[in-house]
Formats: sequence, structure tokens, C-alpha cells
Amino acid sequence: MMKKHNFGAGPCILPPSVFEKAAESVLNFEESGLSILEISHRSEAFVSVFESARSLVLELMELSPNSHTVLFLHGGASLQFSMVPENFLTRAAAYANTGVWSQKAIEEAKKVGIVDILYDGSIDGYKKTPDLKLLKESLQSGHDYLHLTTNNTIYGTQYPSFESFPKPLVVDMSSDIFSCQRSYETFDLIYAGAQKNIGPAGTTLVVIKNEFLEQLSPRIKFSLLDYQKHIKAESMYNTPSVFAVYTSLLNLKWLKAQGLSEIARRNSEKATLLYEAIDHSDLFEGFADKKNRSQMNITFTIANSSVAKRFESLCEEAGIVGIKGHRLVGGYRASMYNALSKESVETLVEVIKYTESNA
Amino acid sequence: MMKKHNFGAGPCILPPSVFEKAAESVLNFEESGLSILEISHRSEAFVSVFESARSLVLELMELSPNSHTVLFLHGGASLQFSMVPENFLTRAAAYANTGVWSQKAIEEAKKVGIVDILYDGSIDGYKKTPDLKLLKESLQSGHDYLHLTTNNTIYGTQYPSFESFPKPLVVDMSSDIFSCQRSYETFDLIYAGAQKNIGPAGTTLVVIKNEFLEQLSPRIKFSLLDYQKHIKAESMYNTPSVFAVYTSLLNLKWLKAQGLSEIARRNSEKATLLYEAIDHSDLFEGFADKKNRSQMNITFTIANSSVAKRFESLCEEAGIVGIKGHRLVGGYRASMYNALSKESVETLVEVIKYTESNA
Repeated sequence: MMKKHNFGAGPCILPPSVFEKAAESVLNFEESGLSILEISHRSEAFVSVFESARSLVLELMELSPNSHTVLFLHGGASLQFSMVPENFLTRAAAYANTGVWSQKAIEEAKKVGIVDILYDGSIDGYKKTPDLKLLKESLQSGHDYLHLTTNNTIYGTQYPSFESFPKPLVVDMSSDIFSCQRSYETFDLIYAGAQKNIGPAGTTLVVIKNEFLEQLSPRIKFSLLDYQKHIKAESMYNTPSVFAVYTSLLNLKWLKAQGLSEIARRNSEKATLLYEAIDHSDLFEGFADKKNRSQMNITFTIANSSVAKRFESLCEEAGIVGIKGHRLVGGYRASMYNALSKESVETLVEVIKYTESNA
Repeated sequence: MMKKHNFGAGPCILPPSVFEKAAESVLNFEESGLSILEISHRSEAFVSVFESARSLVLELMELSPNSHTVLFLHGGASLQFSMVPENFLTRAAAYANTGVWSQKAIEEAKKVGIVDILYDGSIDGYKKTPDLKLLKESLQSGHDYLHLTTNNTIYGTQYPSFESFPKPLVVDMSSDIFSCQRSYETFDLIYAGAQKNIGPAGTTLVVIKNEFLEQLSPRIKFSLLDYQKHIKAESMYNTPSVFAVYTSLLNLKWLKAQGLSEIARRNSEKATLLYEAIDHSDLFEGFADKKNRSQMNITFTIANSSVAKRFESLCEEAGIVGIKGHRLVGGYRASMYNALSKESVETLVEVIKYTESNA
């Protein structure tokens, strides 16, 4: 079968070695004679998987277990849209609206309390991310936290960098976690659905600075929405997504073996390859503003519909899948998560160049 | 490697053919050239998996898609403890307390409104389930619903049967769903964490009678806790647990191929084998009342601690795993979910008889 180049936006590609080891574990988990699917989450073997995954997350982020707590929860990043305000919004919270996922986070926060939208990206069609200095100036003493979405999959924008804020910084890092080098200590709470650069769909990573927990709201309603309950239960308040957590551990080990600096270098190289091809083309046009372009999700369009059709069939012939843009933006989106090879990007660049030269 | 007899309480054993096909899908999902872990949940292939799983659930329950709606959600049965009252408790709700999981459901419901506990099993150590006739008599016109836990894993009790109630009947069927023949139309809402007789941990099945939805509370706070939102989004409000749902489909197909009547016959045969061995023994003693004994989780003790030690080492020698009782009950618990073979039960019975005859 022809090799597939999977540019899908997520659940997305993971390294082949992770797929192999995960498949093996479904038949025989670490030589136990049992499937990973039939072991108790309270078994010694799985508790050790869980602990390794949590400590590898901190290691990759260069954070200490004394200052930060790691959870693997249910519910996807979408449940975090509710959990963050339920746990931390007591007066008012500041949000930046940089796209669909920010908006969803804002909607849920509004159900808890006052939400101040310090930046509204809808004004210029979500083509950029806000200026951090302006955000900082808009923060007020009554804000419990500032919430940002680090990368916007649908529009293909990404904050180029982060810095400390006078208020706790909460980030939805679902689509670019572990894809570049960051000072993770800048953030007070990081959450990320696993299904991009962490592991399979079905678990959500949450990393909380312990200091931030001092701001916990006293009125959290349900146990499953209560960070403190999850922390006390060491992230096993109820049965976790055993397979998703184990496969995440396999991928975290792969990440460590590569090193985040090497991962960052590769992602930058892949993004440069594709952006250069788009920028040098007269037919293809990038969607996002250059200074806020995402290295994970590259959005572009083709104005000429017959060229577009030709491009699509060439992609199909080359084994390129998952490149259709989100309906809100149209055109194309090449998602280039950590495990996507340079070869896949080169294949796409060739197709772009071939489309261009034969138009 | 010696065959393992996995009597674990869950996540638990699934049929070997399900493990094999699930492992295969991690490498190459239905000849797509892609892993099940890297496909979009919006892809045609996965949407079809999802639809098949939902319609197989209804088929196995002999329910119509016109009268019932099936969801696969995040959060485990524990999130349902909150979602049920959040969506349906407007005046008062009736609960029967038959053990730890009922209690947890009661705790969460109390955060929403008035909870009337019609039966409190703690009085006699959770050795039985309530009489349905007495429950019916205690129900009041102001009750929005009655909540029952069909099988209690920790204590090893199970309702021997169900009947219609004058109020909507909500059941936590996590540990005995699809294990016996039931008139599923008796229930207005069924929920079950997948990790026993459905599939791997990481997804939760919810089946709602559409009529019951007319009773929905108007004040549901968060989107992810709102059944109506999940129904509108056809259970894809956010990225589902793709692998867990796919593996559940594999298991549902296996269930259909066996037939629920055959599954019920086997489970009854397995339970009879083990209960007879316990009842005929002078050393082993069953925990639950005979008329409310569970066919899924068989709890028993050994008074003599040196015999107990000998029994444990014989179990280990025979490859029997997961038989330790819950700390609240002590002793032993043999969980005998659908995929556990009669051979495994016979092995355990042999060990019991051998322990008995060599004491």
C-alpha cells in the first residue's frame, strides 16, 4: 500500500514506533500475558505507567514536581473550558478571543462569572494573535486570570512567544504543546487534549502551578470538575483512559529521546519549507498574518477553482490526506504535528510546485 | 507463557478476537493505511464506526432509534452521577443506596437538589438489594426519577429483576450491562462506563428514552454536561475517545454474534459453578445474600488465615489474577465478565476444591 502523508488536524499522526508498541500492548502489555485493555488501573504496572507519564511531562517542561502538579483527566479540552472558570473564576476573568476554541472557552466561562474580552480577533477575521504588551496593559487587578489559546488550529495562527503576566496565565495548549521550546514556568495552568502531540484521543493533560491552587474557588459544584479532588486522588478519582495514557507515555518517551530542541528545529524546518513554497507561489496564498503564522497548522487557499481541483487530485495521487481546510476558513490546512516527517512536507511542496508550474 | 485467568473487577477481560482486531487497527485501521489513533473523528470511516456502534447498542437492547438515543461520552460513569441530576433533578429525586457507587451518585445529586434515599443498604452491610415493591410504594409524585445501581461490584450484589415504575427509572448499569437478558425498555436512562462488558476504559455509554427528555431541566450550566447538546451534535460535541469507541464496536459485534441469550446462559452457568463450590465448602463463605447475589462479581471470604494464604498461592500458581476483594469487604472477589471463559471458572473451582480437601 502507498505510504500515506497524514496532514490531518487531529486526532493526528504519532511516531510509527509508538503505534507499534501500542498495538503490541493490546495483545500483551509489557510481557504480562494480559492486554493493556484488561488490566486494572490500580494495578502496580499501570500505576507505574501513570507516574512515569506524569513525571516525564514535568521533565519535558523543565518543571519540578514540588512546584507543579500533573493530571490526566477525562472530557477533552472542552471540559477544561468549564473546569478552569469553575475552579478559578471568583471575580472576573480576562480572555483573548483568537478563534473558535477561544470562543468556546469564553462561552463556558460566562456561565460562571464576569468575562472581559481583552482582544477580539473576529474584527480582522482571526488572522493574527494579540500583542502581549497590549494584553498586559489591559489586565486589571480584579482579574483572576488571563486565558489564551496558544495555537489556533482552524485559522492557523500561533503566538510567536510568551512572557510573564502580572496575573495568572492559563493556556489551552492543545494543538502545539511539546512542539517548540517554551519556558513552561510562565504558565500557571496548561491544559491540552491529548490527540495532537501527546497521544490518542481520550485523555486530557492538565499541569497546574501549585501556587495557583491557593486561588481556588470555594464553590466548585461537582466532584469531577474539582481539580483539588483529582489532585488528592492522584489523577485516579475515577478510572482513567488507560490505553490513551499508556500510549501517551510511549509518545512522551519518544519526545524525550528526540529532545524538545530537536523537535522544535524539525518543526521550524518543516514549516519554513511549506511557507516558502506558498509565499513563492502566485496561485497559493497563506491565510494568517506572517508574524503570527502557526508552525502546526498551515492554512492557505487557491483562488482559481480549476487549479484547486487539480491540486486536490494531485494530493490524492501522492497519498496526501487530511488537507481540507475547516469550513470556517475554506481552502486547505496542512497540519504538521511532531510525528509528520519532513518527507511528507517535501511531497506536499512538490505537489504545490508541480501545480504551479503546470497551471 | 502460562495462560492468565483474569478475574479483575475492571477494566476487565474482553474476547481475544477483540484484542486482536483492536491491535491490528492501531497499525492499520480497516486497510486504510492509517492507524485508528491518527484518523479524524469526523472522517467518513470513523463516523460510520460511531453510527454502527450506536445502532448495535439499540439492536442488542431491542430498542428503536425512534424512541431512544445513544451517546458515547467522556468522563466515566462518575460524570453521569453529576449529569443525571444536572439534567433531570428539578424537584426531588429518589435513590437507593446499595453500595459505594450508589453513594457517589447520591453525593453528586445532593449538590443539585433534594435527594430522598428510599433504601439504605448500609444498615445490613450492603448484603442485598431492595425489594422493588417496597421501592415502588415509597416513590412520591414529586420525584423526578428513581436511580438504581443494577449491580454492585464491591459487595457482589445484583437486582435479580426489574419492572416498570410510575416514575422514570435511571440506572447505572456499568458492571452488568449486556451480561443477561433484560427488558431494556423498562429504563428511561441507562448509563455504563465502558470498561466492563462494553469495551476499554475511556468512554461511557448513555441510552436515553426520548420521552424522558421532555423532563429536561432548563438550568443546565455547562455544555459538556448537557445531554441535549450531545444529542444535537450526534455524540460528537467534542472529540470522542476514538479507539475506545472502535474497540467497543468490535465487542458489540462479538456480543451480537454470540447472542445475549447465549451470553446470559454462559454467565449463569459460570456463576452457578462458582457459587456451588463456595456453598458446598466449609472454609469458603459467600458474602452477599443468596437471593441478591451477583452473577458478575462473586464475593467470598475464608475465615482461616493460613488456609487463605494457601488459597492465594494456589491461585497464583494456576495463573489466576485479580481476585483480591475490595478493601471495604476484604476476602476475595471473582469478577466474571462476559469474556471470561468457563475454563477460567473451572480452574478457580478446582483451586477452591483442592484448598478445601488439603486443609
